[in-house]
Amino acid sequence: MDANAVIKELAVAARAAAAMLAQTPGRRRDAALIACAQAIRARKNDLQAANAKDLARSEEFGLSDAMVDRLRLTDARVEGMATALEQIAAQVDPVGQTLAGYNRPNGLRIEKRRVPIGVIGIIYESRPNVTTDAAGLCLKAGNACILRGGKEAIHSNLAIAAALRDALDAAGLPRAAVTVIDNPDRSLVPAMATAEGLIDLIIPRGGETLIRAVAQAATIPVIKHYAGNCHVYVHGEADLEMASQIVLNAKCQRPGVCNAAETLLVDAAVAEEFLPAVAADLLTAGVQLRCDEPARKILAASDLDAENVIAAEEADWDTEYLDLILAVKVAADLDDAVAHINRHGSGHTEAIVTRSIEAAERFVAGVDSSSVMVNASTRFSDGGEYGLGAEVGISTDKLHARGPMGAEDLTTYKWIVTGSGHLRT
Amino acid sequence: MDANAVIKELAVAARAAAAMLAQTPGRRRDAALIACAQAIRARKNDLQAANAKDLARSEEFGLSDAMVDRLRLTDARVEGMATALEQIAAQVDPVGQTLAGYNRPNGLRIEKRRVPIGVIGIIYESRPNVTTDAAGLCLKAGNACILRGGKEAIHSNLAIAAALRDALDAAGLPRAAVTVIDNPDRSLVPAMATAEGLIDLIIPRGGETLIRAVAQAATIPVIKHYAGNCHVYVHGEADLEMASQIVLNAKCQRPGVCNAAETLLVDAAVAEEFLPAVAADLLTAGVQLRCDEPARKILAASDLDAENVIAAEEADWDTEYLDLILAVKVAADLDDAVAHINRHGSGHTEAIVTRSIEAAERFVAGVDSSSVMVNASTRFSDGGEYGLGAEVGISTDKLHARGPMGAEDLTTYKWIVTGSGHLRT
Repeated sequence: MDANAVIKELAVAARAAAAMLAQTPGRRRDAALIACAQAIRARKNDLQAANAKDLARSEEFGLSDAMVDRLRLTDARVEGMATALEQIAAQVDPVGQTLAGYNRPNGLRIEKRRVPIGVIGIIYESRPNVTTDAAGLCLKAGNACILRGGKEAIHSNLAIAAALRDALDAAGLPRAAVTVIDNPDRSLVPAMATAEGLIDLIIPRGGETLIRAVAQAATIPVIKHYAGNCHVYVHGEADLEMASQIVLNAKCQRPGVCNAAETLLVDAAVAEEFLPAVAADLLTAGVQLRCDEPARKILAASDLDAENVIAAEEADWDTEYLDLILAVKVAADLDDAVAHINRHGSGHTEAIVTRSIEAAERFVAGVDSSSVMVNASTRFSDGGEYGLGAEVGISTDKLHARGPMGAEDLTTYKWIVTGSGHLRT
Repeated sequence: MDANAVIKELAVAARAAAAMLAQTPGRRRDAALIACAQAIRARKNDLQAANAKDLARSEEFGLSDAMVDRLRLTDARVEGMATALEQIAAQVDPVGQTLAGYNRPNGLRIEKRRVPIGVIGIIYESRPNVTTDAAGLCLKAGNACILRGGKEAIHSNLAIAAALRDALDAAGLPRAAVTVIDNPDRSLVPAMATAEGLIDLIIPRGGETLIRAVAQAATIPVIKHYAGNCHVYVHGEADLEMASQIVLNAKCQRPGVCNAAETLLVDAAVAEEFLPAVAADLLTAGVQLRCDEPARKILAASDLDAENVIAAEEADWDTEYLDLILAVKVAADLDDAVAHINRHGSGHTEAIVTRSIEAAERFVAGVDSSSVMVNASTRFSDGGEYGLGAEVGISTDKLHARGPMGAEDLTTYKWIVTGSGHLRT
């Protein structure tokens, strides 16, 4: 069978399951989620045996130590997967919510009602817990899903899928509500991304190369999550002590994640006062500072370890370091900071530190990013911190969903128009 | 300059305009819309002179009479364009609306606020009034737009654009907020659809060939409007007199539009009673009936003009006739009707006629379409009838916007997180 035929067969079954799920009340979907959590716990030994097969091949696939670590299904990770499913079950049902409802002058009643999307394809790498998170969120929102994990985790993912599908079956829901593709053929990825009328949405989760490849091939909608090149702007009217702490937290609390700060913009009005103090703290924390000329001059005049204060190159403004490196620039004013962010940023998360309402409002309106923090660390840009529960990703797109995506973002809506024999004239 | 460079130059200017619009209060955007309406009225002679150039070439482009009619800028059409802009100005500002707002246990305030998307590309055919509608809705929602009309209307569209841009300039907004492409090179369409980071969304409006071509080429999000293969299902517990009127209205009131009915599904429980009566009315109205075998048998036993009652072929269930033709099928029950619609429909609009709450709810949940009518004609599926004002199209997609799209659907949102020095630990 060619790749399109493989996907078609899976997707036709998934569509039938989705049609059933769309008519299933929330309590039955929640009961199935709890059954899934129980199955994950009950099958811990099976999951770890399958995971051992993947781990045994990790050298063959050339996985780094960090990737091997993400692949490993420890006891704690298995328990975490089960707990996440229970937490998803406990969330409010997004399906059936009325988004708008009103009567028209002719007596027609118009209602915009939240409904499942249908069949969602998710393409991802490494971490097997994405399998339960993604399947759980799709099921919560009444969708069937087709999951395509990496070949390095295929035994783990198939064992997880077997547990979930048996639990769905026992709960009276169709097994095809959750499909993990067992065929490692790479041509299945473009086949998924072009399955018009069969798959409604593709969400790629992983490195930028994977996401770009899917977006290029796709003829169906894709929600993308590109890099997080996040900025902190210290305004002229900032509380400088607060600003120091926010910069430190945004850069150092967990430098390897997408909501960590990569560039510090300091307003010219406070640069001479602020920069030497914050630089001392950052250098103590092991951060290398890559500075524009004005920032470097200010720091050169102070009594700091010069070794880790170097000149920024143009490429630094566009780089997501994911490391203890911070680009530093003196911004002429708020407009200059906003222009820099919109030119070099990735539309993920930016922060302003200021006491001024007017400055905060202008910054919020001006930066074209999914999240804008006012007097808070960029590290809060996260579905859990926003109270969404589990997240299926953080969208850097602007269409359909932007920023952290929860179960609600895996729904669409329907217009329901109720009359009493209304005719159009 | 190659096509990508042409688009890049236009889009860079549009992005700068969009950045300015994103910070412009609604009253200034509304004032500009009213200035645009005045300019359209004041330049009526210019617009009609440009339109005459297009009309003179209509034979060269092989336009049908219907297309020539749509192209013609009569006095009434010019006035209609101005009035539509004034109506858009009068709508509530979608920008800045709070979609959700709440406090987190740690004291962070989370707000999901509606903001403009940025730069929207619209690719369309024939009717010059799309230029004012699309530009007006984009401006209302704080977006810049890049409009690519058909070559058969290029003089008209450029004259309209000149009027709009002069009015924007006089109102203190950037001319680049509205761009009509004057270059007829066909390679500009794929260049628009792949302008990542420059154009945020493409909306193709026109025939299915155009829309498919754009969707195939695109690497940026596209919202599509495919065919309207709409159904009316007459349930076993329908008021049959009401059902007759709804079927007649849905088929005959304006057969050439996308929300006209194309297939009638009659429940087996009422087929023998209902079909002969509704068929007599439909035949009188000049409708040809293409029937499945059970429907044909019922009609053959009645005293009707047999010439316009013919056997349906498999292809009839998938056809959008846009004409006085109706496919007719006896459905075994509600589930059979829903299954038929989900297999053959285009996800546009379906209607059920029934007295039963339970049947209505099951039909509403079961059919996978953008609009579902309960005891009302499919012809109500329209932005104006839903109270949205002007519409930029009717989406048959499920992502971002579904069904009739107004100014609100040309927005995205931003997460605004306000703290008082919050750090993540």
